[in-house]
Amino acid sequence: MRATCILLCFFTFLVASSAHPGKKKQYKPCKELVLYFHDIIYNGQNAANATSAIVAAPEGANLTILASQFHFGDIAVFDDPITLDNNLHSPPVGRAQGMYIYDTKNTFTAWLGFSFALNSTDHHGTINFMGADPIMIKTRDISVVGGTGDFFMHRGIATIATDAFEGEVYFRLRVDIKFYECW
Amino acid sequence: MRATCILLCFFTFLVASSAHPGKKKQYKPCKELVLYFHDIIYNGQNAANATSAIVAAPEGANLTILASQFHFGDIAVFDDPITLDNNLHSPPVGRAQGMYIYDTKNTFTAWLGFSFALNSTDHHGTINFMGADPIMIKTRDISVVGGTGDFFMHRGIATIATDAFEGEVYFRLRVDIKFYECW
Amino acid sequence: MRATCILLCFFTFLVASSAHPGKKKQYKPCKELVLYFHDIIYNGQNAANATSAIVAAPEGANLTILASQFHFGDIAVFDDPITLDNNLHSPPVGRAQGMYIYDTKNTFTAWLGFSFALNSTDHHGTINFMGADPIMIKTRDISVVGGTGDFFMHRGIATIATDAFEGEVYFRLRVDIKFYECW
Repeated sequence: MRATCILLCFFTFLVASSAHPGKKKQYKPCKELVLYFHDIIYNGQNAANATSAIVAAPEGANLTILASQFHFGDIAVFDDPITLDNNLHSPPVGRAQGMYIYDTKNTFTAWLGFSFALNSTDHHGTINFMGADPIMIKTRDISVVGGTGDFFMHRGIATIATDAFEGEVYFRLRVDIKFYECW
Repeated sequence: MRATCILLCFFTFLVASSAHPGKKKQYKPCKELVLYFHDIIYNGQNAANATSAIVAAPEGANLTILASQFHFGDIAVFDDPITLDNNLHSPPVGRAQGMYIYDTKNTFTAWLGFSFALNSTDHHGTINFMGADPIMIKTRDISVVGGTGDFFMHRGIATIATDAFEGEVYFRLRVDIKFYECW
Repeated sequence: MRATCILLCFFTFLVASSAHPGKKKQYKPCKELVLYFHDIIYNGQNAANATSAIVAAPEGANLTILASQFHFGDIAVFDDPITLDNNLHSPPVGRAQGMYIYDTKNTFTAWLGFSFALNSTDHHGTINFMGADPIMIKTRDISVVGGTGDFFMHRGIATIATDAFEGEVYFRLRVDIKFYECW
């Protein structure tokens, strides 16, 4: 009986230690999703299939071509299809909606504030992202600051990679979302 | 004595299980607030009582009327009074400040980034919100990503409903804020 | 042996109680950083050393001078050097990147969404901020909603003070970042 209790104590201790599992240094995600989204910037001639538009720019710049000087100051609003693979024409599982801001004068970096609104047989809910995106680096980490529906109160890290681009009109981003707080 | 210890063990186990109470599936809020805010969009003629202004729009659009094509690309900055009930003329308990972005080409959706700055006898502090707002749906969930003052480090979910609107000038939003991390 | 177990039980209870230490009311930061950042607004004549630009403004305003009526509606994009002390010319330890929005008609307040991208011998990673900034108040609290790298999954509160300003071109902000969730 004593042994049982000691075992219980020990087991309880283990449980207590892992009461907030993500807080340990090993950082094992409680959930992971890999998704792609596709951004087609409006350039004055592609209104039908553009999914984003430049809506703000510094003095002297216009809204149908990204500003010079590394596009510093451009704000683009987007509503991009999300797919499970890297094919723009795959059936979308949701939309990536929000904005990006080009925010450096001497290289290409962006600041991102956006949401994934997922609506598929597998996932229903939103995921909210925010962070700095140094575009020229192969993979960039931003914060998953919250979620709703299937992703209620989730937090985590999203690793973004530019999977493909065509000139300054089409960008495809691969997003590896690792949740560390899952509820 | 053994029984006591086993009881203690068991009790400890329960405590351990609930060390992070919000992480359970029942999702009972630790705090809840229902507030209203009132948005009057500047249309070129209502400077005196407008509380928000369109400050960015895609090429070809102007800033005194929401863009065509479901307002896609419009960014509005707002500073709206918050009230305890649905009356615009009730004494405000704070201000809702930030921006919304119309971000879909084929329906009305917005992306929200804003804060409540509350300053009343009941509440003093700020609440920070972010998320996708599919305006045409009756209730929409966004993330409460943080707070200060009375809402120090809080997280939760805000459910937004369009309580009333008049044309494209006045919108009243009901916000049901449920905190699940209260500190 | 029983005493040992009771002791264990008690110890386990203590561990359980503090499984999420930050959730207690004493609010002791698990990490703290004090940094400065320096914002030089583009005014049409300082392109070489400006670090921010007004990119959106309400109807009737322009982009080389802050709008009248307390700058209501101006959106500025910035890429500001971060330093360890209050000297603009100290070696930068990173960049503050994002945007601020002037969002009140009858006083100066801003809404902030930005990131610190730190890259020094001491710190490597990003910190993501969001919140209301009532500029005229001596110190203002905003939310630290996430981080990456050395600041993986961190949350906290940043207290901002306007350390210096010159007209409406140069602002220096002191940021005292207190993390309460450190992982």
